[in-house]
Amino acid sequence: SKWKIWSEQDVKKTLHKRDAYSHKGTFGTGLLIAGTDEMPGSAVLAAKGALKMGIGKLIVGTSKFASNIIAQHVPEATFSFDALDKLAIGKIPERIHAIAIGPGLTEQVKIEQALDTIWKSEIPVILDAGALIKRNYPKRTAPIIITPHPGEFSRLTNISTYEIQQNRIEYAKQYATDHGVIVVLKGTHTVIAFPDGTGLINLTGNAGLAKGGSGDTLVGMLLAFICSEKNMKAAVANAVYLHGRCADILVKEENERSIVASQLSKVIGKVLKEIE
Amino acid sequence: SKWKIWSEQDVKKTLHKRDAYSHKGTFGTGLLIAGTDEMPGSAVLAAKGALKMGIGKLIVGTSKFASNIIAQHVPEATFSFDALDKLAIGKIPERIHAIAIGPGLTEQVKIEQALDTIWKSEIPVILDAGALIKRNYPKRTAPIIITPHPGEFSRLTNISTYEIQQNRIEYAKQYATDHGVIVVLKGTHTVIAFPDGTGLINLTGNAGLAKGGSGDTLVGMLLAFICSEKNMKAAVANAVYLHGRCADILVKEENERSIVASQLSKVIGKVLKEIE
Amino acid sequence: SKWKIWSEQDVKKTLHKRDAYSHKGTFGTGLLIAGTDEMPGSAVLAAKGALKMGIGKLIVGTSKFASNIIAQHVPEATFSFDALDKLAIGKIPERIHAIAIGPGLTEQVKIEQALDTIWKSEIPVILDAGALIKRNYPKRTAPIIITPHPGEFSRLTNISTYEIQQNRIEYAKQYATDHGVIVVLKGTHTVIAFPDGTGLINLTGNAGLAKGGSGDTLVGMLLAFICSEKNMKAAVANAVYLHGRCADILVKEENERSIVASQLSKVIGKVLKEIE
Amino acid sequence: SKWKIWSEQDVKKTLHKRDAYSHKGTFGTGLLIAGTDEMPGSAVLAAKGALKMGIGKLIVGTSKFASNIIAQHVPEATFSFDALDKLAIGKIPERIHAIAIGPGLTEQVKIEQALDTIWKSEIPVILDAGALIKRNYPKRTAPIIITPHPGEFSRLTNISTYEIQQNRIEYAKQYATDHGVIVVLKGTHTVIAFPDGTGLINLTGNAGLAKGGSGDTLVGMLLAFICSEKNMKAAVANAVYLHGRCADILVKEENERSIVASQLSKVIGKVLKEIE
Ligand SMILES: Nc1ncnc2c1ncn2[C@@H]1O[C@H](COP(=O)(O)O)[C@@H](O)[C@H]1O
Ligand SMILES: Nc1ncnc2c1ncn2[C@@H]1O[C@H](COP(=O)(O)O)[C@@H](O)[C@H]1O
Ligand SMILES: Nc1ncnc2c1ncn2[C@@H]1O[C@H](COP(=O)(O)O)[C@@H](O)[C@H]1O
Ligand SMILES: Nc1ncnc2c1ncn2[C@@H]1O[C@H](COP(=O)(O)O)[C@@H](O)[C@H]1O
Ligand SMILES: [Mg+2]
Ligand SMILES: [Mg+2]
Ligand SMILES: [Mg+2]
Ligand SMILES: [Mg+2]
Repeated sequence: SKWKIWSEQDVKKTLHKRDAYSHKGTFGTGLLIAGTDEMPGSAVLAAKGALKMGIGKLIVGTSKFASNIIAQHVPEATFSFDALDKLAIGKIPERIHAIAIGPGLTEQVKIEQALDTIWKSEIPVILDAGALIKRNYPKRTAPIIITPHPGEFSRLTNISTYEIQQNRIEYAKQYATDHGVIVVLKGTHTVIAFPDGTGLINLTGNAGLAKGGSGDTLVGMLLAFICSEKNMKAAVANAVYLHGRCADILVKEENERSIVASQLSKVIGKVLKEIE
Repeated sequence: SKWKIWSEQDVKKTLHKRDAYSHKGTFGTGLLIAGTDEMPGSAVLAAKGALKMGIGKLIVGTSKFASNIIAQHVPEATFSFDALDKLAIGKIPERIHAIAIGPGLTEQVKIEQALDTIWKSEIPVILDAGALIKRNYPKRTAPIIITPHPGEFSRLTNISTYEIQQNRIEYAKQYATDHGVIVVLKGTHTVIAFPDGTGLINLTGNAGLAKGGSGDTLVGMLLAFICSEKNMKAAVANAVYLHGRCADILVKEENERSIVASQLSKVIGKVLKEIE
Repeated sequence: SKWKIWSEQDVKKTLHKRDAYSHKGTFGTGLLIAGTDEMPGSAVLAAKGALKMGIGKLIVGTSKFASNIIAQHVPEATFSFDALDKLAIGKIPERIHAIAIGPGLTEQVKIEQALDTIWKSEIPVILDAGALIKRNYPKRTAPIIITPHPGEFSRLTNISTYEIQQNRIEYAKQYATDHGVIVVLKGTHTVIAFPDGTGLINLTGNAGLAKGGSGDTLVGMLLAFICSEKNMKAAVANAVYLHGRCADILVKEENERSIVASQLSKVIGKVLKEIE
Repeated sequence: SKWKIWSEQDVKKTLHKRDAYSHKGTFGTGLLIAGTDEMPGSAVLAAKGALKMGIGKLIVGTSKFASNIIAQHVPEATFSFDALDKLAIGKIPERIHAIAIGPGLTEQVKIEQALDTIWKSEIPVILDAGALIKRNYPKRTAPIIITPHPGEFSRLTNISTYEIQQNRIEYAKQYATDHGVIVVLKGTHTVIAFPDGTGLINLTGNAGLAKGGSGDTLVGMLLAFICSEKNMKAAVANAVYLHGRCADILVKEENERSIVASQLSKVIGKVLKEIE
């Protein structure tokens, strides 16, 4: 079959050691457009996820007010207060290897304009939350990755959440092949569908992830791997796998009730060590 | 008797495992109205308590200045800068499963107006600190939970603190049955009185809790369980039990003098693990 | 002799267990006037020290800008943005059991006016850093505690630092008896001189304390004990002893070079546990 | 040969124990000019590095907005909001034992003017990032230390990065002797060239450092040792050695992918303990 379960063995095979002679440029610069005054935390979580997954450099496009909060958590990142505005007026940022856009964003019009600009570039892009808008995707070589949870996927497809959940693989596959995008349909046993009709199923993760913020951390983890890994399929699958595995390691010491999204990034290192 | 001590066995019996197929919607969205420019920490503590107890989503209604401080501690939460104002002018927030109001609040008039709005809804509500105002409670199905310490209960009842402390169970029971509210009378051996005349006594906790902020953490813990648990009596009793137990676990490594309220949430996971 | 070395045995004898039926009011409310926009950290360190030593409630009088920084570290504290201004115009704060003033403060005139107000009250007070101004002390029952390092003591006394260091005990004793204040002359082997001519010498601490911020933590630790302990001599000596002991415990895992002032408060609990 | 590898033995021999009778003045006051509104983290990382390496006092010259973020991480530091402006108009700061300038800075003209002021003083200075401007260095006794990565060194020398990397030692040595400055040419096996033609090679560190922020931490570590150590060659070499060793200790628990720059300072104490 063209669909398979993504296992620890797959991760081991596809995650390479960092070259001794690498420098930060080797691992790419990611642009994360996320976070507003009333929703700064989504950007915190995504930024932390990106950094702990080994991104070379991270630029966070966010509001000045939100940047103050984000910077506390990620002194390794730099900020751009007008990144979204610039994208919205058609300016493609320079020397960026991947963009993630959406967590904590609300301004639909600006986001749509920004997407129009991104479509014209060949920068790989991850669309989440506020950037999961029903619209056409362009024909381009660089991947477009969408990360809806069932509710968001329902809004994108006009199919009810219940119906989607009855047939997660089929609906994800359909959307991926129809629109030429990579679909990460989140929720228990996340489904990853590629435009070529193939797909992967992830078994890591637990109900401790059923909380606000879990998805934001995943966006950052994906951004890091899209920036720094060559194999796009493996990059996406590995990020999803590791995200769930972080939750699995956390419930060994705590409880599904108590773990929160900000704890996920704290154990990325431990999880990578286990697998390496 | 209709009164009993709430034990570890009771917690075990009433705390259920999270369903593998749950998502954040399964555990409810809580609205916490707390914190002002000069008292931001109360909201920090309550928010952290709510998140570490497994709430699905948390919205903190607070001042913009305070939100900056709170967001540092809880990137999983989102904010509303006008939640109290909106409640005060009669707007009932949508898709909220429980409200906690009071920690760090001072504006009496606005709070009273907000309470009038809440009374009209069927959203369960927790009243603490600044929201413990002497007034009539409405007849409604959704529970009203008040969490006074003896000093606050004295102000509510016009009975001296000394007198209350001589007969904690009786006064709590009286107030609960008279007003149709759940009374959590705090202090050594917290007393929980229900409107039906029954009640529970909690034996966890220690003098390490005798410090500013302990009660704020409890409010958040209660909010999470009111949001995500079915059995209201057990939800309240379990939150009170676990709050005290966090203090008990902390004094094993430290001292009653040294533990502070922000440490309570840090061991919720460990406590839940012990009990699970 | 009327002078002795303060030992672990002395601490053990004078530090009492918290009463099981205590509440936050039992341990007093302290007012810390410290921190400015360019020197916020001093207040962070003092506040943390106070809280980890078991103060009942802590109010930090500081600038609004500084409060944002302080609140991140001590969600258990509340703030007053005009506490110094109010003291300066003669308003004595209500329900305050002790005041510490000085860390990170620069406005000499306001501080002097505030001291004039404090003198009129019977609130115990700790003077440090910016509040170590050469001036007369009033006759009052409540203790005045000054905490100069040798350089600051030199400015207070017009005696050279070198000369002071040759005869630390004599100069501290002289000043304490002449002015009726408690002198905590800091530095290697801190000397504590009381107005009655008696004194104590502390042997804990190490060169890891020879860094900006160490003294600020001490101020907070003193404030907590002045607020919550009965015996003033023991309160001062215990705070000084424990402060040094925190540094001693830290260098077991790290190095005198690497320990920083904010780490001191983090081990207060461990130190208290060792001694309890 | 006049070039050698700097080993653990060399560090052991040159790092002295802190004198028991030292005070914060013994270890010098450093001025760090770093960080802007959109790049505050660089200053956070440098400041933390300086403090954990034992600097006596640290003043951070930065924007007010950035100071809020920095102060959260380093309550031990104080701030100057106009330090760069003052340097730019020719004012030499008082009682400063070393200056580090550049991380996160962008205003080229002001930086050049500030450097002109610094040249006139005899304060040792470290130039990094935004302060690595192609220009003449003055004749002075106090050392000038530059810390370029290969890309920055390429801009300073007009030699391609590729060419530099083929012959790191030769190019670093040439520049050091030609310009009378200490060159810390970063990257795998950092090369340290002194104006007298001698040099050192560092073998610690790993690809976990190939990320934004690693160099900022190094600047702070260098500043601390330039402030507090007598032997300038050893001071530079020890800071570089320890910086890499922090990364080496971190990958024992985590992975080269997951370690981030802010973690380096957290293990300085452990590394110093191992070596002491
Ligand atoms: N019950 C569950 N079991 C496993 N993973 C879950 C569960 N609930 C949520 N998740 C994951 O948590 C994240 C939630 O994303 P979001 O809804 O955007 O915050 C996704 O990665 C989901 O796959
Ligand atoms: N001496 C004590 N023993 C046990 N619990 C206490 C004690 N003092 C305070 N508490 C608890 O700490 C919290 C204080 O609430 P508050 O006064 O609102 O900060 C309540 O949950 C009290 O039950
Ligand atoms: N070399 C040292 N040995 C022991 N304690 C010290 C040493 N240097 C400083 N201290 C202590 O650190 C604090 C410094 O206060 P300050 O100078 O105000 O920051 C005081 O408590 C001193 O007693
Ligand atoms: N692959 C690597 N191996 C060892 N050290 C590295 C490596 N990449 C970067 N570094 C170090 O990390 C820091 C990077 O500085 P910067 O580029 O200014 O952030 C320098 O100290 C480099 O020597
Ligand atoms: Mg989401
Ligand atoms: Mg309370
Ligand atoms: Mg001092
Ligand atoms: Mg750099």
